[in-house]
Amino acid sequence: MPRVYLDHNATAPLGAAARGAMLAAMEVVGNPSSVHSEGRRAKGLIETARRQVAEALGAGEADIVFTSGATEAAGLALAGRGLASAAIEHDCVGAWSEGALPVDAAGRVTVADPAATALQAANSETGILQDLPAGLALTDAVQAFGKVPFSFAWSGAQMALVSGHKLGGPKGVGALVLQRGLDVAAQIRGGGQEMGRRSGTENLIGIAGFGAAAEQAARDLADGTWERVAELRNILEKAIEAREKEIILVGKSTSRLPNTLCMIAPGWKGETQVMAMDLAGFAISAGSACSSGKVKSSRVLRAMGYGEQEAACAIRVSLGPSNTEDDVLRFAEAWCRAYEKHRARAA
Amino acid sequence: MPRVYLDHNATAPLGAAARGAMLAAMEVVGNPSSVHSEGRRAKGLIETARRQVAEALGAGEADIVFTSGATEAAGLALAGRGLASAAIEHDCVGAWSEGALPVDAAGRVTVADPAATALQAANSETGILQDLPAGLALTDAVQAFGKVPFSFAWSGAQMALVSGHKLGGPKGVGALVLQRGLDVAAQIRGGGQEMGRRSGTENLIGIAGFGAAAEQAARDLADGTWERVAELRNILEKAIEAREKEIILVGKSTSRLPNTLCMIAPGWKGETQVMAMDLAGFAISAGSACSSGKVKSSRVLRAMGYGEQEAACAIRVSLGPSNTEDDVLRFAEAWCRAYEKHRARAA
Repeated sequence: MPRVYLDHNATAPLGAAARGAMLAAMEVVGNPSSVHSEGRRAKGLIETARRQVAEALGAGEADIVFTSGATEAAGLALAGRGLASAAIEHDCVGAWSEGALPVDAAGRVTVADPAATALQAANSETGILQDLPAGLALTDAVQAFGKVPFSFAWSGAQMALVSGHKLGGPKGVGALVLQRGLDVAAQIRGGGQEMGRRSGTENLIGIAGFGAAAEQAARDLADGTWERVAELRNILEKAIEAREKEIILVGKSTSRLPNTLCMIAPGWKGETQVMAMDLAGFAISAGSACSSGKVKSSRVLRAMGYGEQEAACAIRVSLGPSNTEDDVLRFAEAWCRAYEKHRARAA
Repeated sequence: MPRVYLDHNATAPLGAAARGAMLAAMEVVGNPSSVHSEGRRAKGLIETARRQVAEALGAGEADIVFTSGATEAAGLALAGRGLASAAIEHDCVGAWSEGALPVDAAGRVTVADPAATALQAANSETGILQDLPAGLALTDAVQAFGKVPFSFAWSGAQMALVSGHKLGGPKGVGALVLQRGLDVAAQIRGGGQEMGRRSGTENLIGIAGFGAAAEQAARDLADGTWERVAELRNILEKAIEAREKEIILVGKSTSRLPNTLCMIAPGWKGETQVMAMDLAGFAISAGSACSSGKVKSSRVLRAMGYGEQEAACAIRVSLGPSNTEDDVLRFAEAWCRAYEKHRARAA
């Protein structure tokens, strides 16, 4: 049986558009900062990608600063600013903000002062979407970008973080999006690339891939791709719900990403679930992937009021456009069987 | 006529080994931090690349921290340390160090306190090599790595900077090399990747390319590739020297990188030379490429005692393994013809 990848919120497979753009960029000799023909051609690829990302993101009037990913972009935007945030933010935002904003049981954050707050558009673990208040200092749009309609201009946020590898681009490239006129203090300093905001020879191949992936993602979204993914997610959810009465479906009554299912199986550690499903041929996750293999009880679920035990027994299943109904039905069957075995052993 | 690329110190074309490794990495689905099979496979690619870089660099006993390039690695190593350096260092080192160490007419730096000094192994503009004193705090090995024998262990340096795209890997990936036991304060913070020293989902495809390029570079170096490049550089230098008596060959009497020729054509601005040669089909550079297209008189040459006028009239020609004798002879002919025209107009 071929393996089934259901961990798209951790990282998505490289899409065909990104791959093609990267292969083309591999043939371009030249440093984007060089003034000769080869350099200008390399520079051209970067500016094309910048337009592609800006258009896909509704950020045509904003500045796009390419970085090595959303994590770097978060530091660039947030270092030294002391913004408020909630505990459900990604670690890369949490590292630079206060983390004390209240989160309700539905996963929604109460923002007191938007201009001094960082708030995610969508949560990576639960998929829960936030209503972004106008004038927000920063939104982490990593998980939303490409999966739900998101426009930087409409969001009213001053800054946004985006990442290539969550929408079919390569890992290791992202961007900070800034309303024109705003500025940030360069963290990575040297040659003055990216208008002095981020030095270092640009990741030409990666940026080309990100641009193409963003363009493709916008097309797919318009074509209804993610509505089909949502149907699969709902089929999966119903199949499990119908068979297992003890499980808790997190965020089911809140607006969520179309592809994300977060569920708690009381008494069965998320880590163990991930390993069992891995052996059965399915890639899923317990919490965020970014914690270098460390699996702890979910900080996100704790913030929503779940207990330590419940939060330790959660998994995230995150689908992508290439998943099929067969994939999700096979997963439901395998997961339920494993859960029932676990309960039989534990009984 | 096909164009001739003679700007390898700015960036080298992507090599076959790197390209192959990147294509293979494109097929690997999975976040290196994920614990499932897909994640472990991605992690495996990164650890393979880490070994490849360490071996090629004689750094088997050191830690390799992958970054988005040498510029980021420089900040990671140097921020807040106030090390001494000379004005000939790359901007990414200069941004975080003092820059006041004396440079002699041959381009050599006098180091007072190695443990408090950053010193490049080779200069990007002149190719001049430094004798690295034992116990150096940091060496920028970006230009040396792959072109001349360089061993991190033998260098005795505590830290080194390296970059993928100078030796046939992709742009946007590099590393900080650290003697084991040393540590640095993470600049990019979040998920705790790279043992907590550098967060952010890893540039999987780029890192795979860097590893393969480093391995290939070590093989090429052992095979005498760069001795052949040095012969071509010497042929070029002699051809120009024989015809143009006014030119100054910078660093000719000092140990240099095998591929680099830095020359001053009095009265003819480097910037104009680059444009003239670009039109004639050759990519060369005036100073470092990293200054975002800005061409100023060379800070490196000024530090060596050349006057403002001379330093503004320098170019760098930097060869690579794919250049041929025909390439350099055609360049010599085109350059001399253009220089003679320039002088005729100026007279």
